[in-house]
Amino acid sequence: MAPSSRLAGIFTPNIVPLDDRGEINEPELRRYVDWLIERGVHGLYPNGSTGEFTRFTADERRRIIEIIADQTRGRVPILAGAAEANVKETVGACEHYHALGCRAVAIVSPFYFKLTPAGVYAYFKEIADNSPIDITLYNIPLFASPIDVPTVQRLAEECPRVVAIKDSSGDLPHMMRMIAAVRPLRPDFAFMTGWDAALMPLLLVGCDGGTNATSGVVPEITRKLYDLTTAGRIDEARELQYRLLPLFDTMLYSAEFPEGFRAGVSLRGFATGRGRQPQSPSQQQNLVKLRDQIQCLLAADGFVDEPIGGCPVSESIDNEQVARIVEGVVGELKRRGMA
Amino acid sequence: MAPSSRLAGIFTPNIVPLDDRGEINEPELRRYVDWLIERGVHGLYPNGSTGEFTRFTADERRRIIEIIADQTRGRVPILAGAAEANVKETVGACEHYHALGCRAVAIVSPFYFKLTPAGVYAYFKEIADNSPIDITLYNIPLFASPIDVPTVQRLAEECPRVVAIKDSSGDLPHMMRMIAAVRPLRPDFAFMTGWDAALMPLLLVGCDGGTNATSGVVPEITRKLYDLTTAGRIDEARELQYRLLPLFDTMLYSAEFPEGFRAGVSLRGFATGRGRQPQSPSQQQNLVKLRDQIQCLLAADGFVDEPIGGCPVSESIDNEQVARIVEGVVGELKRRGMA
Amino acid sequence: MAPSSRLAGIFTPNIVPLDDRGEINEPELRRYVDWLIERGVHGLYPNGSTGEFTRFTADERRRIIEIIADQTRGRVPILAGAAEANVKETVGACEHYHALGCRAVAIVSPFYFKLTPAGVYAYFKEIADNSPIDITLYNIPLFASPIDVPTVQRLAEECPRVVAIKDSSGDLPHMMRMIAAVRPLRPDFAFMTGWDAALMPLLLVGCDGGTNATSGVVPEITRKLYDLTTAGRIDEARELQYRLLPLFDTMLYSAEFPEGFRAGVSLRGFATGRGRQPQSPSQQQNLVKLRDQIQCLLAADGFVDEPIGGCPVSESIDNEQVARIVEGVVGELKRRGMA
Amino acid sequence: MAPSSRLAGIFTPNIVPLDDRGEINEPELRRYVDWLIERGVHGLYPNGSTGEFTRFTADERRRIIEIIADQTRGRVPILAGAAEANVKETVGACEHYHALGCRAVAIVSPFYFKLTPAGVYAYFKEIADNSPIDITLYNIPLFASPIDVPTVQRLAEECPRVVAIKDSSGDLPHMMRMIAAVRPLRPDFAFMTGWDAALMPLLLVGCDGGTNATSGVVPEITRKLYDLTTAGRIDEARELQYRLLPLFDTMLYSAEFPEGFRAGVSLRGFATGRGRQPQSPSQQQNLVKLRDQIQCLLAADGFVDEPIGGCPVSESIDNEQVARIVEGVVGELKRRGMA
Repeated sequence: MAPSSRLAGIFTPNIVPLDDRGEINEPELRRYVDWLIERGVHGLYPNGSTGEFTRFTADERRRIIEIIADQTRGRVPILAGAAEANVKETVGACEHYHALGCRAVAIVSPFYFKLTPAGVYAYFKEIADNSPIDITLYNIPLFASPIDVPTVQRLAEECPRVVAIKDSSGDLPHMMRMIAAVRPLRPDFAFMTGWDAALMPLLLVGCDGGTNATSGVVPEITRKLYDLTTAGRIDEARELQYRLLPLFDTMLYSAEFPEGFRAGVSLRGFATGRGRQPQSPSQQQNLVKLRDQIQCLLAADGFVDEPIGGCPVSESIDNEQVARIVEGVVGELKRRGMA
Repeated sequence: MAPSSRLAGIFTPNIVPLDDRGEINEPELRRYVDWLIERGVHGLYPNGSTGEFTRFTADERRRIIEIIADQTRGRVPILAGAAEANVKETVGACEHYHALGCRAVAIVSPFYFKLTPAGVYAYFKEIADNSPIDITLYNIPLFASPIDVPTVQRLAEECPRVVAIKDSSGDLPHMMRMIAAVRPLRPDFAFMTGWDAALMPLLLVGCDGGTNATSGVVPEITRKLYDLTTAGRIDEARELQYRLLPLFDTMLYSAEFPEGFRAGVSLRGFATGRGRQPQSPSQQQNLVKLRDQIQCLLAADGFVDEPIGGCPVSESIDNEQVARIVEGVVGELKRRGMA
Repeated sequence: MAPSSRLAGIFTPNIVPLDDRGEINEPELRRYVDWLIERGVHGLYPNGSTGEFTRFTADERRRIIEIIADQTRGRVPILAGAAEANVKETVGACEHYHALGCRAVAIVSPFYFKLTPAGVYAYFKEIADNSPIDITLYNIPLFASPIDVPTVQRLAEECPRVVAIKDSSGDLPHMMRMIAAVRPLRPDFAFMTGWDAALMPLLLVGCDGGTNATSGVVPEITRKLYDLTTAGRIDEARELQYRLLPLFDTMLYSAEFPEGFRAGVSLRGFATGRGRQPQSPSQQQNLVKLRDQIQCLLAADGFVDEPIGGCPVSESIDNEQVARIVEGVVGELKRRGMA
Repeated sequence: MAPSSRLAGIFTPNIVPLDDRGEINEPELRRYVDWLIERGVHGLYPNGSTGEFTRFTADERRRIIEIIADQTRGRVPILAGAAEANVKETVGACEHYHALGCRAVAIVSPFYFKLTPAGVYAYFKEIADNSPIDITLYNIPLFASPIDVPTVQRLAEECPRVVAIKDSSGDLPHMMRMIAAVRPLRPDFAFMTGWDAALMPLLLVGCDGGTNATSGVVPEITRKLYDLTTAGRIDEARELQYRLLPLFDTMLYSAEFPEGFRAGVSLRGFATGRGRQPQSPSQQQNLVKLRDQIQCLLAADGFVDEPIGGCPVSESIDNEQVARIVEGVVGELKRRGMA
């Protein structure tokens, strides 16, 4: 396989719009797929973490891919999240997504139980030996068993079906170590990052692209950042990376993941519905406030209007006051055993 | 509800025997249930972490509870693991297990995504408001979002259906903080530990019992440890706790969880089959060695014969040699990026 | 050496009163020493973490031991913190404290740099081979390189000068593993805990005593808890342990360590002065509030009067409000990069 | 102050050569200083982590700066590590290093005790208010209390004396967040990275330079990497960054820090002596092996000859064998309580 066929570009890990009953909102999902493709994302990545794959049933996960494959109709490649309860179920999903014409599957490392490298290797090896479709390893150590460099190297050596890794660790030297270990052996092997906050630097050290949640909200920016960086227009790319960073941080850190991204997609005009993970009253109040903050960031880039109440002229926070509140709250909680 | 009705005693988180095709081995599971009950465990806890609930499909999880409920026929109470993909599915499982006559369900805190306390609260609150069966919170911070003391307190105050917590953190003062916060408000609320290594001390500070994986291998010892401790026979209990510790450590730490416990159950005479998580060749070799070590520990307590090769007279390890190997291996791996 | 000579009982890790210029307040330190001895602590442990050994110069550390040795005049044994910049300096301190008549020194594992077990071993081995005074290993993994079980075992085997370990990990099974590994070889080896929150359970599994910061504030309670537990009066001991827990938690978690304990000592009537670590205005405000909380806890046990504003009848906190504040603050901080 | 006066370039955190008695080897230190300056480093950074400041006495730390200032004679600026036991001692060191003509001091965040952001702020604020010399904050969360973005921002706003931060977290987006927060307010504020593994990408997002331990071993490479990157010669810089990475990883991860760097300096022809942290026999054996590995890496770049035994043609490791050894060792250690 020639290097030119490597996975590359920006793949959107889409959220799944839900209707009032909490079921998949198929028309809105189809409309969202079209919108993303029209705005230039290179591919779609359903059933990722942003797509909350763990909160759907096995049947629903298949249905999501079916809808997206049908709507995409080959306009862009699909990287289908295929992790199921065990190897047999996962291989079954691989077969199904292959039949649907997906470009590849992405399989997250085993989670809940924390496996050693030997266990991670054995898991992917057995899947790769039985899958009819190309496989992207998915490393997200915050949520799942880490995939270390020797394991990536070994799987790349032994398994032609394993063609890429998506790494969401955000650890740049780790990415370089993987590239150094694998690229000489497998020029066709692709390295994708899930860490939007460092997309430009990661592309500059050799990544082929990203599966970036921001591309589901501002595909225009993420795509342009990719284009500028790969064109070597470093100064412009740097500026755009600095603009993307607060948007990414706000959507990622200000609410339970992926509620911030759901709010962002909603602001772009989609009926996302409420997520399946219940939100406490305090969380719901914070989401309202967060929505305004995201709207202000999007308005600053011209994507939407400012919220009715307007946006703050500049970020001016009373550091001492914040510090005092934090001291008090942290103390209170620690005393009550929250460590 | 009177305190006397609290959940109490030793509940066994059973592994699930599999046949040659990797399917549930129903006859062996039934035989294992009888064996456990005959050896005095106070209850059964299927679909726990030891039961590898994440590696079975939703249908299989139901099937496991059905078999165990049918086989138990009310001889001991069943605490049924009921965590599913989302609230709706989990409530459906609660209804089913209620219909089967289970005493209560145990629901692990949301995993994969790491939730804040507010999210953990909202999740359990919505389930508790819709469940027809009593609920045990399951806190296992190593694998799932932690349940902190204020959240336990709040759920205990607001949700009569929440009647217990199983805590596998192994943090003794944390258990004391929970007991101090909840017991005055809810004398009927039970505290169960999943940390066999500290069963005696935890019972002495007020725990009602445990869901202990060792009780699936040596129910005789775990039950006796409970009896001695609750009878105030501290010296005998301490001695037994010290005997249980190496067995627990060996089965827990020497292989991917729960392979050590599977080996232990197998040594007691059950056809456990191979687990669904693939094992690399190196892991399989280590499992053979581990099996002998467990057999020696069981033989020392008279439960089985020694392995054919005999057992070491005493643990005599060349510390310097181990240190040298570790230094070398760790160095090699770190250089290759395994951190 | 006979087991009867093991270190045992409650050793107080004393804070050091400072005067208005931030210098050692010798008269107050002497008065504090007398007060502690009169209230029954079994020994003193200057230059521990509570004693903020890192915030004094090498000369000051020696001066502190000199004052305490002079004031104690053999009434109780002294365990002198002796960690210095390197092995040579530490051995020099050992020699000095030996000459002063201290019972033993306590040496914290190397900190700042995180050492492997081999490095920790080498460090203590070289000190033990050159020290004229008995050595207590000090394991506090939160602050310093951890001392693991094989390292303790090896040092106990090879170094007669190493006679005890003080463990502040709070991990009860870890303590049991150390006792199981070392006691058969060295019946004279003592195990001391620095984790007041679990003093009773740790004594019940075989610890010999504790170096407990609470004993610097309420020596009456910590000593009584030791006496009740070692006398087998479990029910009374449990009740006292539950009373000690909130006091420990409040002093430990509500301010930068050891400011809570400094406030506690001050409430018992000593001019502690201000610590050497500067406190921000927000921290100073919180310390005022914390002082009242500690005073209320001490008043509940009859040690001091209630603060002028009185004490809350019961702890009644609006959980939802706390949760809301935390959500907001955490979100704000995360957005600003505090992770 | 104009932005052009910002700290910039590669500052070498030098190790300190020791003689046979473990004392500072002044002639060799002077020779090493000359060698570094001749090879183009932009500045020197004594008493950093690589310089093992914690393992010298306060007097020795002053002596080290005196020697280096005297030998440098203004050829390059000196950034002097000035952290002492407390604020008063640290300010005293600042005064002394100012008198010696150092360009600035670097002060590590408080360590051993883990401080909150409020405590970190208060510490640096009091020092900055009393220092006659410019201050570089030193953030190394692996070893010391982390300095978060709001704290950097606040100190930059309030303290003209604080002119830079050295960040060794290796977290690229964190660096971007700091730059975004501080640069608009303080164009003269410099950002230096201590993470050689990502020097090029960090320079590309706006860092001014680095305090890089590799520059003490291969100043030629680190300097060239800086020059190529700042000249926008990305492809050449990338290639050099990939060459630096295994050297950095090998020296950093293959032995207790900074033994790998000491070995590297020794290979460049300096009598470094043995470090003050004792090494166990197993560690010493590994250091011999490590020395060969570093020599091979240096030989590949033409800096030294290959070791007598030659170098491996390519890295060919039996993954399965390594995995098997690791499984066995890890299992053994875990069983013995090393977790």
